[in-house]
Amino acid sequence: MRCITVSASIQYEIRIGSGLLPETGAAVCALGGIRKVMLVSDDRVAPLYAETAARSLEDAGLETHRFVFPHGEASKNWETLGRVLEALCAAGLTRSDCVAALGGGVTGDLAGLAAALYGRGIRYVQLPTSLLAAVDSSVGGKTAVDLSGGKNMAGCFHQPSLVLCDTDTLRTLPEEEYRSGCAEIIKYAMIGSEALFETLEGGLAAQEEAVIAACADQKRKLVEEDEFDNGARMLLNFGHTFGHAAEALSGFSIRHGEGVAMGMAAVTRAAERRGICEAGTARRLEELLRAYGLPVSLPFEGSEMAAAARSDKKARGDAVHLVVPERIGRCRTIRVPAASLAGWLS
Amino acid sequence: MRCITVSASIQYEIRIGSGLLPETGAAVCALGGIRKVMLVSDDRVAPLYAETAARSLEDAGLETHRFVFPHGEASKNWETLGRVLEALCAAGLTRSDCVAALGGGVTGDLAGLAAALYGRGIRYVQLPTSLLAAVDSSVGGKTAVDLSGGKNMAGCFHQPSLVLCDTDTLRTLPEEEYRSGCAEIIKYAMIGSEALFETLEGGLAAQEEAVIAACADQKRKLVEEDEFDNGARMLLNFGHTFGHAAEALSGFSIRHGEGVAMGMAAVTRAAERRGICEAGTARRLEELLRAYGLPVSLPFEGSEMAAAARSDKKARGDAVHLVVPERIGRCRTIRVPAASLAGWLS
Repeated sequence: MRCITVSASIQYEIRIGSGLLPETGAAVCALGGIRKVMLVSDDRVAPLYAETAARSLEDAGLETHRFVFPHGEASKNWETLGRVLEALCAAGLTRSDCVAALGGGVTGDLAGLAAALYGRGIRYVQLPTSLLAAVDSSVGGKTAVDLSGGKNMAGCFHQPSLVLCDTDTLRTLPEEEYRSGCAEIIKYAMIGSEALFETLEGGLAAQEEAVIAACADQKRKLVEEDEFDNGARMLLNFGHTFGHAAEALSGFSIRHGEGVAMGMAAVTRAAERRGICEAGTARRLEELLRAYGLPVSLPFEGSEMAAAARSDKKARGDAVHLVVPERIGRCRTIRVPAASLAGWLS
Repeated sequence: MRCITVSASIQYEIRIGSGLLPETGAAVCALGGIRKVMLVSDDRVAPLYAETAARSLEDAGLETHRFVFPHGEASKNWETLGRVLEALCAAGLTRSDCVAALGGGVTGDLAGLAAALYGRGIRYVQLPTSLLAAVDSSVGGKTAVDLSGGKNMAGCFHQPSLVLCDTDTLRTLPEEEYRSGCAEIIKYAMIGSEALFETLEGGLAAQEEAVIAACADQKRKLVEEDEFDNGARMLLNFGHTFGHAAEALSGFSIRHGEGVAMGMAAVTRAAERRGICEAGTARRLEELLRAYGLPVSLPFEGSEMAAAARSDKKARGDAVHLVVPERIGRCRTIRVPAASLAGWLS
């Protein structure tokens, strides 16, 4: 088991290892003052793991309630969030109680935002069961739901009180979801660690726990430096501006990780053409993405992509901040006027 | 014009005086970086003041959009909040833009929460047009909507970037709403200032601007000391535990100020009977409340009140924190086990 401590507006631990889920109850109890827990999960994860988590919580003496919703990004919406909040009321949770997000990024984002809003903020713990949630969305306190006007457009910064990543749960992950998580891992390598990139070129399987911990630790550093996403943390957005746009344009039939993979490849090619990025970087990135079964081409026109990217919530006034690689292991942010975004990409 | 500077997680000004609304545009522009403003108001306030505010914003070069909703607490709900957020998307506001809440407490709470959530937080300005909003809800960054499970159950702390209180707008306030605001002013006197209490015994009319500023300044101190409502700020809840309960039990036919008046009187009588509070305090408070046309009796049974108060979001585990007066101008918080709440009140 590996343990990383995040010191943001609150301090909390990320624990990564095998066999952690059956220990949830003791870990939640140790946070102090909690009597009731609302366990939130989707209808794919609940049949696999809700019983283990709930039994552990109940054995620790915690009154445990469950909220299960239909899986998929389509559920990460205003209506589901309202239903979680009403369920928290109905279960009588008070300010000293806790929400537990058992699942992937959708569950963590949704349950985290419900915890952020309920009674103006109660605690929550992240129990990520997907690779993407383990390395990215469960850490750092970004919570959100989608609006019809855009992905993650309604949200809050609300740090979890604990992240318990039981790597055993990754074994039941559908292959395409595992691949989607690999895209985020490759992103960490691109923005901060050539050593991690080289590890990944050798394959992930034997090093899974160490790689997850390396990603979580990179994220920790960026979150500690820039909790509210006004500077360094923007680097985590590498591949996301056009990735989100592709997801949105596809009506979310493109997975988040696939979108990020396409976005990273497209931005890296453009940056290389512009001389911002070391020659050969795009080729090496594309090779790694392909080795992990990830796409490298955007299936939409530059003009469509640019229009969708302009409505991204990271836009400020007339410009978009775009994260571009200089070489493997180093990225920076550039400001591109919204009007020249299509040209920049092509 | 009086100006008070609040130093919380952000620093902002409260300006109180005549003729401020037509100056909104310049004041908002001075915040910097704003291109678009969404002006939120209800269908009672919009016909009176939206044109003045919008023209001022437009004259200052700001692209101004409007969102108008049906007046009343019943609109402060999940569905209206979702519609405000979609309107912000549709108008294309970015992270550097701004929401303006023009109206009373419902508008401020609703628009403030929309600003807190949109793109994980954009700026907003409070343009209070009710006495209650001027002295209380527009300052301090508490935003919320009601859930079917309780009042203000979904919300955030999100400080405004500016509060502009044009006292001219109070002249169009219905008399019962003005009275409702007086209840909050009397609350400030009870928790922090016997001198303010004595001023109020002499009548409000001639001193309105000074009294609003005195209340805003008291709130400033408490917010600076305890932005996230874990200690000193709880004093502002005087009269609110049972006040909220009475509002909820009445299906919100009891106004907020009426509920607070009833709640203050009931708690003060109980505190006096228990020897917590100086003899004669309840009588003097009741006389002042009556002089301002406010009710002093709770129209529900102690057991009903206690049950409703237990579901208040301020409850923590098995206890309710109750604010009780020691004398006029001084209150403190006591912890009452939820089970003995009905007995405490009767």
